[in-house]
Amino acid sequence: MEQLLRVQNFTVSSDGFGAGEGQSLERPFGHANPAELMSWAGATASWPNRTEPGGSRGLDDYFTRDFARNIGAEIMGRNKFGPQRGPWQDLEWQGWWGAEPPFHTPVFVMTHHPRPSFTLSDTTFHFVDADPATALGQAREAAQGKDVRLGGGATTIREFLDADLVDTLHVAVSPVTLGSGVRLWESPDELLDRFHLDVVPSPSGVTHHLFWRR
Amino acid sequence: MEQLLRVQNFTVSSDGFGAGEGQSLERPFGHANPAELMSWAGATASWPNRTEPGGSRGLDDYFTRDFARNIGAEIMGRNKFGPQRGPWQDLEWQGWWGAEPPFHTPVFVMTHHPRPSFTLSDTTFHFVDADPATALGQAREAAQGKDVRLGGGATTIREFLDADLVDTLHVAVSPVTLGSGVRLWESPDELLDRFHLDVVPSPSGVTHHLFWRR
Repeated sequence: MEQLLRVQNFTVSSDGFGAGEGQSLERPFGHANPAELMSWAGATASWPNRTEPGGSRGLDDYFTRDFARNIGAEIMGRNKFGPQRGPWQDLEWQGWWGAEPPFHTPVFVMTHHPRPSFTLSDTTFHFVDADPATALGQAREAAQGKDVRLGGGATTIREFLDADLVDTLHVAVSPVTLGSGVRLWESPDELLDRFHLDVVPSPSGVTHHLFWRR
Repeated sequence: MEQLLRVQNFTVSSDGFGAGEGQSLERPFGHANPAELMSWAGATASWPNRTEPGGSRGLDDYFTRDFARNIGAEIMGRNKFGPQRGPWQDLEWQGWWGAEPPFHTPVFVMTHHPRPSFTLSDTTFHFVDADPATALGQAREAAQGKDVRLGGGATTIREFLDADLVDTLHVAVSPVTLGSGVRLWESPDELLDRFHLDVVPSPSGVTHHLFWRR
């Protein structure tokens, strides 16, 4: 059984940014408004953080649901894990997600400043100072035959694309412009040398981009 | 946990027919060519009958994969089960699907001519002479908390729609016209009094229709 490295539900602005400028504790996405960027997913019946019944069961719901399907581990960049830069001042920070992180698998955080692993509910965070191929090897082993999700941010996805390690990508392009920030691409066409692409507009206003290897 | 009745991957012609006229042992879909109607699914990486590696991982693949997701039982009409009409002449017929049917759950066949249940691999066929609500009750119990798939044909789907028992529908409209046969609808708009609708064109040429309850 093939073990894929999948980008899943990664949302960028219409001008290609995965986050704005100036990430901080108060502004995890910098000047970008995550509620606006991610509203397509929050409106669906399968959104994990939904507090009331209801929600759409259309196209966007299909993608929301696939976030966790057959995923056994996640790889993320340190900038997704937290706003700190450089050596850890202390180890109190345990991510944005509180006591019940939405991953439910081992998570491998790429960082030049490793720290001890820790567990919150059913998510264990590991810290890896390694190149993408080595980190992917560790995540694959932890995933026990399931796929590995490449969780972002945009810089981390670019590093794995540069190393040609990504098998499939689902990127939701939101009808929001950011002007500046952390860029995934100038245009999705940059990936067409190596990937097939389905472009699927959703009635919600986002355009889903599905890439898989040629 | 809500237990849905879902139509999943049901394919109709652009003029609304789920099968052609003159169903027979040699022509399970009557004058319709199932390979042509279903080619959108057969081209995907997740198609269960795929014999070679490869296949697309785009939009059509999402739907192909969802055929089995969280399904614990199927309900089908007798005309999907086989070409015979009226009382069974003998019990040799065990469906179109050979020793390994693609359902992998209990299957409830709606018929006025019940016969004993039988099992092929991990699929058990039951035969139910009952109204849709009663059959659904039996299928729900067998599904053990999972959803129930309403497998068709078109006449059976219409009966469950008329009884207002269907929660969600995914119908793939194929760019093929049949002119006559077993009709699902004159137009998808017939369902808009009770359902929301996302219409999603796929690059393969089919148009996916996603309905969920208002």
